[in-house]
Amino acid sequence: MNPEPVVLINAFEVPEAEDEAFLAGWERQRDFLSTQEGYLSTRLHRSLSPDASFRFVNVALWESAQAFRDATSQPEFRSAPVPLRFHASLYEVVREDER
Amino acid sequence: MNPEPVVLINAFEVPEAEDEAFLAGWERQRDFLSTQEGYLSTRLHRSLSPDASFRFVNVALWESAQAFRDATSQPEFRSAPVPLRFHASLYEVVREDER
Repeated sequence: MNPEPVVLINAFEVPEAEDEAFLAGWERQRDFLSTQEGYLSTRLHRSLSPDASFRFVNVALWESAQAFRDATSQPEFRSAPVPLRFHASLYEVVREDER
Repeated sequence: MNPEPVVLINAFEVPEAEDEAFLAGWERQRDFLSTQEGYLSTRLHRSLSPDASFRFVNVALWESAQAFRDATSQPEFRSAPVPLRFHASLYEVVREDER
């Protein structure tokens, strides 16, 4: 087990007219993932500007990379993809600063 | 003034061989920005996998969009850009969940 949580960052390409459909799909995925072993938290961000490359970005914490992979390889997750281009990866925090 | 902080999310396209140069440039920018009015905190993430679309993603909190724009329009900031493709926007948190 990794003692530090891993960070999932997922940048979604969402055309402005598709916010509602995107949010409905994202919430379905969150509802499933939040029941899975190793899930810690999630935070969905929407850009202030409509012309951002990624209008929505999700930042979630998982106990380990393995827990995230196990959760997202479940048939229930794989059968209900968000129908938009996205860029998802797992990350570790390498620099941290607070005023 | 916005009572909720805004979130800067910046996704950097960093080839694997350029980590050191990227980190040095990013730290110079952080050193400058962290002295500016309205800066709250920053957290730099590196992907666990070398083939992520964005090997580094920065998530920073600012008191307001205006404070961030004022800081990044300073000549000192603009004269030392990170020499890599990046996708930066300001965001608000629209969904939040914790186990």
